[in-house]
Amino acid sequence: MSESKSARGQRGPREERGVAAERVLQAARSLFTTRGFASTSLRSVADLADVDVSLVSYYFTNKRGLLEAALTLPPNFASGVQASANAPIDERGRALVTANLAAWDDTSTADILRASILAAANEPSAMELLRTVYSSRIVDVVASHLPEDERQVRAGLVASQILGLAMTRYVWKIGALKDLPSDVVVRLIAPTIQHYLTGSLEELDS
Amino acid sequence: MSESKSARGQRGPREERGVAAERVLQAARSLFTTRGFASTSLRSVADLADVDVSLVSYYFTNKRGLLEAALTLPPNFASGVQASANAPIDERGRALVTANLAAWDDTSTADILRASILAAANEPSAMELLRTVYSSRIVDVVASHLPEDERQVRAGLVASQILGLAMTRYVWKIGALKDLPSDVVVRLIAPTIQHYLTGSLEELDS
Repeated sequence: MSESKSARGQRGPREERGVAAERVLQAARSLFTTRGFASTSLRSVADLADVDVSLVSYYFTNKRGLLEAALTLPPNFASGVQASANAPIDERGRALVTANLAAWDDTSTADILRASILAAANEPSAMELLRTVYSSRIVDVVASHLPEDERQVRAGLVASQILGLAMTRYVWKIGALKDLPSDVVVRLIAPTIQHYLTGSLEELDS
Repeated sequence: MSESKSARGQRGPREERGVAAERVLQAARSLFTTRGFASTSLRSVADLADVDVSLVSYYFTNKRGLLEAALTLPPNFASGVQASANAPIDERGRALVTANLAAWDDTSTADILRASILAAANEPSAMELLRTVYSSRIVDVVASHLPEDERQVRAGLVASQILGLAMTRYVWKIGALKDLPSDVVVRLIAPTIQHYLTGSLEELDS
């Protein structure tokens, strides 16, 4: 539908529309991050993006649509995590930590990850997005030949450390990890992730 | 001051005042959790607690005072974490995880911890409280004879795993750890914490 409107020129050249939409998404992320989802209105997003509120409705239908568009991770995030799922099993811990730090060290991806995490604080649908991204993708990293229960527990352990690293280093900026270079953080954390992926977890045998 | 007012009976028996104040604090935590700090007004807290807004001001002065009172952790949280700092060094990982899970499994403490974490999403002063609780207390758990730089890095690693566990298991309820009994989670996570406390971290030697 937007294609044909664009072809008819009703809303300006395609590129211009893309630029305005991206400005709206940036404004939405910024407000979700600083105020939370609940107290962000379509109008406040439109005001910050300097566009008419009807344009926001036209592009994203409603606040839920805006949230989903604003928190959609770029393809290179998914492909980075996917690549770590394809790494040899004994290098997968390092690969996963490296892919996550690379995503956070890319400003545009980091803005989306941060907005996801902070919006999830107060908004169940943002929480659901986060659950999908972290939980399901991380399960893919665990060896597929393992029993399903064990895969889920190993994935849960991996998620707890990967998310805790993201929170302390990038979101809350708590503690010494925020001041260390990424390659040092990878060397410190990767053995833990590798242990959760392939180490002996006696609790799972009993 | 409130002591003498109480003695003069102007605001009712002491116990009644304590009950009203606690109701206000519970209402504040609930609104900080669901709406965030920024969009919570003294009036909305008073309405939810079913007290006059002037009483909220009288007890807590302003929104900052209310935040601080609402997010003050009970003494048994501090003493639990402190006890783990005094455990023999090779049992300290398990002691710290056990103390944290015990705190989260106690509803009244969990409400405060959850409100702290969610308020920190949008409110710098809540973030500062969280930083103090987690960062400084966790440094105490690391062996005091170690060089300061190393202590800080080890504490940062511990914080990343302890906070990530809290977020995934109790706040976001992501992944399989939320469904496991506490003693199993302790056995799964304690070796990681112990490694961060006392294990060989080659990166720190180079």
